[in-house]
Formats: sequence, C-alpha cells, structure tokens
Amino acid sequence: MAETALQQLGPAAVDRNFQGAAAGMVPTHQHLLARNGTSSSPPSRRDEATPAANGGGGGGVSPHRATTKLPRGKKSAAAAGGGGKLRKRAAPLLQAALAALFVSMSVNVGLFHLYVNGTAPALHGEEHKACLVHLDGASGSSSSSSVSGRRRMKQEEPVPKAWAAGAPSTGKPAVTAESVINLDHGDPTMFEEFWRGTGSAAEIVIPGWQTMSYFSDVGNVCWFLEPGFDHEVRRLHRLVGNAAVDDGYHVLVGTGSTQLFMAALYALSPPNSAAAAEPMSVVSTAPYYSSYPAVTDFLQSGLFRWAGDASSFKGDTYIELVCSPNNPDGTIREAVLSSESGIAVHDLAYYWPQYTPITKRADHDIMLFTVSKSTGHAGTRIGWALVKDRDVAKKMTKFIELNTIGVSKDSQLRAAKVLKAVSDAYELPEAREEHRLFDYGRRKMVERWSMLREAAAASGIFSLPEETSGYCNFANETAATNPAFAWLRCDREDVEDCASFLRGNKILTRSGSQFGADPRYVRVSMLDRDDAYDIFVKRLASLK
Amino acid sequence: MAETALQQLGPAAVDRNFQGAAAGMVPTHQHLLARNGTSSSPPSRRDEATPAANGGGGGGVSPHRATTKLPRGKKSAAAAGGGGKLRKRAAPLLQAALAALFVSMSVNVGLFHLYVNGTAPALHGEEHKACLVHLDGASGSSSSSSVSGRRRMKQEEPVPKAWAAGAPSTGKPAVTAESVINLDHGDPTMFEEFWRGTGSAAEIVIPGWQTMSYFSDVGNVCWFLEPGFDHEVRRLHRLVGNAAVDDGYHVLVGTGSTQLFMAALYALSPPNSAAAAEPMSVVSTAPYYSSYPAVTDFLQSGLFRWAGDASSFKGDTYIELVCSPNNPDGTIREAVLSSESGIAVHDLAYYWPQYTPITKRADHDIMLFTVSKSTGHAGTRIGWALVKDRDVAKKMTKFIELNTIGVSKDSQLRAAKVLKAVSDAYELPEAREEHRLFDYGRRKMVERWSMLREAAAASGIFSLPEETSGYCNFANETAATNPAFAWLRCDREDVEDCASFLRGNKILTRSGSQFGADPRYVRVSMLDRDDAYDIFVKRLASLK
Repeated sequence: MAETALQQLGPAAVDRNFQGAAAGMVPTHQHLLARNGTSSSPPSRRDEATPAANGGGGGGVSPHRATTKLPRGKKSAAAAGGGGKLRKRAAPLLQAALAALFVSMSVNVGLFHLYVNGTAPALHGEEHKACLVHLDGASGSSSSSSVSGRRRMKQEEPVPKAWAAGAPSTGKPAVTAESVINLDHGDPTMFEEFWRGTGSAAEIVIPGWQTMSYFSDVGNVCWFLEPGFDHEVRRLHRLVGNAAVDDGYHVLVGTGSTQLFMAALYALSPPNSAAAAEPMSVVSTAPYYSSYPAVTDFLQSGLFRWAGDASSFKGDTYIELVCSPNNPDGTIREAVLSSESGIAVHDLAYYWPQYTPITKRADHDIMLFTVSKSTGHAGTRIGWALVKDRDVAKKMTKFIELNTIGVSKDSQLRAAKVLKAVSDAYELPEAREEHRLFDYGRRKMVERWSMLREAAAASGIFSLPEETSGYCNFANETAATNPAFAWLRCDREDVEDCASFLRGNKILTRSGSQFGADPRYVRVSMLDRDDAYDIFVKRLASLK
Repeated sequence: MAETALQQLGPAAVDRNFQGAAAGMVPTHQHLLARNGTSSSPPSRRDEATPAANGGGGGGVSPHRATTKLPRGKKSAAAAGGGGKLRKRAAPLLQAALAALFVSMSVNVGLFHLYVNGTAPALHGEEHKACLVHLDGASGSSSSSSVSGRRRMKQEEPVPKAWAAGAPSTGKPAVTAESVINLDHGDPTMFEEFWRGTGSAAEIVIPGWQTMSYFSDVGNVCWFLEPGFDHEVRRLHRLVGNAAVDDGYHVLVGTGSTQLFMAALYALSPPNSAAAAEPMSVVSTAPYYSSYPAVTDFLQSGLFRWAGDASSFKGDTYIELVCSPNNPDGTIREAVLSSESGIAVHDLAYYWPQYTPITKRADHDIMLFTVSKSTGHAGTRIGWALVKDRDVAKKMTKFIELNTIGVSKDSQLRAAKVLKAVSDAYELPEAREEHRLFDYGRRKMVERWSMLREAAAASGIFSLPEETSGYCNFANETAATNPAFAWLRCDREDVEDCASFLRGNKILTRSGSQFGADPRYVRVSMLDRDDAYDIFVKRLASLK
C-alpha cells in the first residue's frame, strides 16, 4: 500500500517531500518554515488560459489579487529559505512519485497524520468531527495519538517577534499548483477580497477600557446581547426580506450558530428527563449536516440524543432540524414531520441572496443564522437566533450563560459593524455599487458554479445537482441557486468512495457517509480563496 | 408580609417607586428611562467625610472619577426627564416606607421579579444560575415566568439611534445613594478606571477583512489559538511567576474559563460511560464556587456529574476542582483527595498579585485562568488553560471545536493586546509606573478591604475572614491577601439568612447556601465600580 511505501521513507523524508509537493494543507512544523520562504512572493494570478478554470458560461472572470499577507518570522531566514526553495517547484520526479502513490491510496491512511497530527481542524461553518473522522479514521473522539517528537518541540520554542507584535492570523497557508487543496471545511475566505475592497467601512476600534462588564443590556431577555448588534441584525433581515424580525421576535446572540443550536436543544428538551423516560429525539432528513449528530451526542446528554434520519423516524416527540438551503446538498427544505409534540429548528445559515433566491420571508419559531456564511466572518464566531417564544428565548439564553457566560462583546460589536456596512451599501444614497456584498457574492458564486460545471463536464466522471432557480424578492429578478457547497457524485464504477478517490488526487472533501448518505458523494466547499478554488477545478477537470 | 404590601400597590406603582429608590439594580424597562435622565449628570465623587467609607487604616483614599459614559437615547427626552427627576432624590416618606418594608422582607420574594424579570444575569466571573436562584427562588432553571406586558413590548420597539451607530454597551447602569447595589456577580468594572488611564496601550483596530478564517494556527494542537495570544499568555506568566508555561505546557484558549472548565470535564471523563458504569464524579471542597455544580450538571451528561463536597467524597475515581485563591472565601487551597485514578483541575482565576501574594510558580496538570479576573475584561470572554498532557489538550480542544468551533479571534487579539500592555508596563524601560496593573489592583484592593473591615467594625454585626499574608515573589515583599470576594458572616442571632437580610437593605449578594455552606454567610463582590462599592460600605456600616 502507498501508505507503507511512504512511511518507509521515514517521517523526515515524507515531511520534506510534502513541503515541496503538498504545502497548503494543514502544515507540519516544517511547513511553517516553508511558508516563510514564499511570504514575500508576488501574489498568484488566476491562469486565464485554462478553459476549465476560466469557464465559458459563467459571469466574466476577473483576475483576482491574492493580497493575503502571510505571517512573518517563525524561524531563521536560513531555514525559511531552504524550505521556500523546495516549495517553489518540487522536482518533477518527486511529483510523479507522489502522484502515483496518492492515486492508489485508500481511506484513513496514517499518512494524513502528517498533515493533521494534533491539529484536527474539523469544521466548516459549524462543522465538527469530520476532519478527525476523515483523516484519522477515528470516530469523532479526539484521542488519536501518533505524536511526533518534532511537533512536541514546537510548544517549547519561543514565539517569534511577529506574534509578539500581535500580528493576527491569516487562516490556512497559501497554496501552489501542487498543493493539497483542502475543501473539507466551509472556510469562507472567498469573502476576504470583498472586505478588503470596502476600506474602513467595516473596521472597528476598541479602546482598552470598553465593554469590560459581563452585562450588555440588563433589560433584555438576552442580557449579554449588544443592542447595536440586535439592531443591525433586524435591519439586515428587513433589507433582505429573508426572515421575520418584528411581531415579538427575540434576537439571541451565540458563539457561532453551533452554540445556539445546542441552546435550542437544551431549551426544547423537557428538563429532568434522566428521572423521566427518554431523552428528546433529534432528527434531520438525510443528507443532513454532519455536525448535527456530533454536536447532539458528544456530551451524552440525558436531555436529548441523535435519532437519525427524520424521514424514517417513528414517534411524536422530537426536535427536527431543518437546514435550508440544505448543507450539504443545497436543496430547499421544509420540515417533513408534523406532530403537536414535535418542534422544528430552522437552520437558515445559507438563506442569503448570494446562495439562493429569497422567495419568502421565513417566520419559523426558531431560526438560526451566522456571520460565517452571510458575510464570511467565520473567525468572529458570531451567530444569532430569531426566536418567537419568550420562554424558549430565556432558556436558550440560560444555556449560553451556563456554557460561556455570554458572548464576546468585541465580536458582537465587530459583527454589528460588518452587518451595518452590508446594509449601508444598499441603503445609503452615497454608497458605491461595488460595496454591495450580495451582488459580489452572487457574481462569485455564479462564476464558481459555472467553472465547476465546466470542470465536471471536461472530466466526464462527475455529476452535480441540477441547477434550480426562482424569483428573488431581494434582487427583483429570477436567480439560480448557487450553493455554498457542491454535492458532487463520482460516477466512475470502480470508485465506491469518492472522498478517498479525490484525496488520492490531493483534493480534500467530506464523504457523503458523514451526512448519512452514499460515499459516492462528497461535499466540496465553494467558499475558499480564489487560488485554491482555481487549482481545485483545474485538477478536477483533469480526472478521468 | 412586605411582599404582599408592596404587591398591593400594583406593579406600576412599585415599579415607579423603584425608579426613585432602587435604581441601579437590573432595571425594569422604566429604569432604562430613568437612566437617561442622569446620563449627563456630573460624575459622583466619593464622600470623603464619611469614616466608614473613607476608612482609617487603608491606603490613601483618592477621589475617583467615574467617567463612565451611559448609553444615550432609549426613549423620549420627556419620559427620561420624568424618570430622572424621580431618581435624583426619592421623597423621604417613600424612602422610609421602603426601608421599613425591605427590612422585614423574607427570601425569594416575588418583588424581585420586578428587577430581574426576564433578564436573569447570573454570574460573576464564571458565575451562573445564582441570580435566578437568588431572585426568583427557582432552582437554576430558567423557566421563571411572570412576564410583564411592558417588558414584552420592549422587544418590538425600534432600537434608538445611539445603538444604530454601534455604541457599545456600558454594563450595569450607574447608581445613586438610594440604589439597590448588586454585588451578587463578580463584574470586574473596578478595572475600567485603570484602563482608561492607559490611553491607547490596549486599544485594537480590526479591519473588515481580518481573521475571517476559522483557522488561526493549523500547526498547533489548539488550531484556533491566535499565536499572538499564546505568546502574551506565556510572557505574562513568566513575568508574574504564578504559573509554569515552559517544559511542554500547551496553551488553550476558551470562551471564558467556564468553557475550558467544561472542556476539562469532557477531556478527563472516560468516553462512552453510558455503556460503561457511572459518570465521572466531579467534586470540590465546600465552600465551592457556585457554578461548579450548575455547569457540571445542566446538560445531564452521561460522562460526568456533580458529586458534592470533596472532603466527604468516598471513591477513587474523580475530578477534583481546586480553586485557589478560593471563590468564595479567598483561601489558598490544595487538592484534598489523592488517588491514582483521581485528577485535579486547578482553577487559578484569582492567582494574581492584586489578590494574593504569589508564593510559588504553580505547575499543575491543568490550570485555568481568565482575563475577567486578571485584567478585568469580562466582556471579552477569554480564558486560557495551561495543560501538560498533549492528549488532554487535544481532547479539550475537541470540546471547544464541537461546542463553538473555536473562540472569537477578535477577542483573542484584544486579550493579547491587553496582556501585552500589562507586561510592557513592567518590562519596557519607558513605561510609566501608573500603568502597572498589579500595583493599581493591589492598591485598590487594599483600600477596599480596609474600607470593608472598617464598615464591619462600625456595624458590629458582621465578621470577615482574618487577613493573611505571605511573601510575594512578584512584588518582592510581604503582601496581604485581598480576595476578589468578601466572605461575610452576619453574626446577629435573629438573622439566619444573611443574603435575605442584606437584600432587605438593598444590597444584593450571593447566599452561602449556593456554595454548599451556611446561609449566615454571603459572598460579596469586591470588584464593582467605586460609586457602587462606596454606597455598599456606607450602607453596611449603618446596619445594626
């Protein structure tokens, strides 16, 4: 097996190979060195000569400027230089060898420990266990070991000066044409380009003495909610028309919508069920978002438990999770169960004009949203819930109080400023058209979906969901759905596990099996940076 | 009973009375109006003529400047003016009536719904259920109802322009001499004054496009940890000498230390215990921090459960929570249990030079800290853990990944800047002495404890823990302990419930019963703003 072959080279050798051939994925310690070697390179430009990357049917492809700054320092210049050299262009022989090895690789290979050893960044949006599951082959527990001595060392090294100066992180490292492309998570870095273009519209300044109290608004059910955030959430929903916020809706803020998801489970499950009969059943129609079961069950709560696919659920009492547009497959969903003692939680993270036509103003009992997907600010960890019932809102608030004693005020203030910039760009007379987030987002998504369909057609071995469309009340025109994830099927008969096949081709995606579906499917993030996305579609087009 | 008497006035009447006489506590809707009436009043000054407030034995009492800005707008000027007028000086008759009523009030009065109806801000530091418990008389569930129609209305009102402009919140409203003083929570607003004095040293600017990714450092066990925060945490511990950070310690970041507390329970409990025997027992020596049982049990996890006072625990397998200096009583603690299959988690939130002499460098397996108590930035919701074992660190990281997919990068960056400002003030040659946080904090705490001891002596019915001292390796001199909470005992024989007695005198504290201790004790926050603290000590001195 390929794994064995590579392992025989010894960890150091493999690691060095990957600096050259596979940088861009979760780096080992030495990848961090390699990064520095290229940190001052000119930004890559989209290769417009490649049909698969350029597309034909999509909106005009404009060259992008990947101006992302990489962190400086992290090792001596000498070490960095060495890594950089290796990285720029791996020896063709080495490339060929690696390609051969990868193609024959099977799932769950130990090799991937080299990438994610100890790091295990799972998620997309509110994604979780998948990365460990994927890459370690473990079942969502984080007890994977295989600790390299080298990694251990890292903890003890002094942090370089760049960090000391408080330089913020930049997310995943930059990629090259030979990199492993990680589209397992829905990391929404596509939107960075847009926000760079808005200047200081979404910038915030926080003085040292500001918002030091636990309390934000002692008169509100959600006492840790910044009133400015509340205001901008309601304003944006009124502008977009995607959700009702008047007639008594409470706005609750959470540390991402994941925390609000847990809060909803807590609020909707009857208390003291340990003494009573059974925990509340939590269900969702397959394919369902892979984190629903993981988050529901990881603490083995006596209040609620994962009960699988809603369409095969028998019973009257349940919480049904309705994700619409659905993660992973982008379909528009409604609750499939109905019972007086059942209740639905609507996860509307993707119900925004860049992804789908806004066909109606949603007015469900509990609706979840997040800045991660609406504006692309995943690192800010801010989600919100619109909740009709006051007692449910109070109990959800209680969950967050017990879990984290409220939600970062800094991030709430930042999210408020970001949402304000979005609304301002549509509402203020002096606003510039290029500062309209949803227009930008829709243009990008149309372009990316066009590129992807071209690539799938060029390859011939993949299929994608049919494009659907509807009249968008926000855009005032008919618009196509452009989901934040592609639900890609590999049609080649000898490929039973699409994620594994793609991984062998240095494309990391999430297997359909994670979503309660067929492993011939994978979920692919459509929201990464241009350079990574371009490499992905080119590579996909080349697969036969 | 007083409760009935007041209730007979009807809710509107009572509410209006409290605008005048009892503003400052969690306000009702109409309190919010009253606030505006005084928002432009000159800041209050400490009354230096009052012996009880001024003290004799403490450090020099300097007049303070309460420059806290209050939020503007929130209602019409007319309404605000009305409220403000009532608030400035309640009619003496009304005052007398209220005092009489309060003194005879018993615990769990429905009256307090008028204050906290729907708001239930529990906490101190990582405090929880107590507010509801205290004020609703409910057992930590958030299902207290008693909803006023007026409060319901509030959700539907448009947010005023001040919020629209993104004005940040200011915490609890300002107080007057007649206000209810809420020292139930450890809201560390005392430190605002210090940070106002540091100018831009701890200010951050976050551009719209920054830290949008989920990922901070893909090479780190804690992949969402901002390297700059990691760096400043280690630097500060090296400066203060309160905890070991070298020799392989991992720094993990959490949404406050509460989330890290839960993460530790998750990481240290054996998996799949539902299938196996019993959940892991979680214990702590009484009096223990009131949130330990609440946070451990609120989800009824099958992995762990609260098992009470460590000193009476029988068994070999457990997690022992060791809070030192201890919340609520300030004592220095060590683990009381020892067994090969038991493990201790050290909550060192208060192990900083402003509260206690730093007598040794702690080097336990898991140590928890938070900016809430070290620098006063509770609203930032940033805690950290120092963890020796890599696998434990990975599992704690996994918890946070599943719970909230990481931790706000905005707050991490802010916390890094704040910690940097603290260290810089001691390490940079050009730093000014008045910018030294721990010197400031210790001066304030010495002063406040002196004031409190004077007040208790003047009253004659209260006792406090003996002052202890030790050689502080950080200050290089002998220093007294000045706990962040006072563990106050009411010695009057007819008072069995001290919290209730004090509440009757418009002082809100947390009952000893919340900490597994005698209700003759209460815990009192020592970290509120000067104006509230001054009113508290004056009022305490007057009780006979």
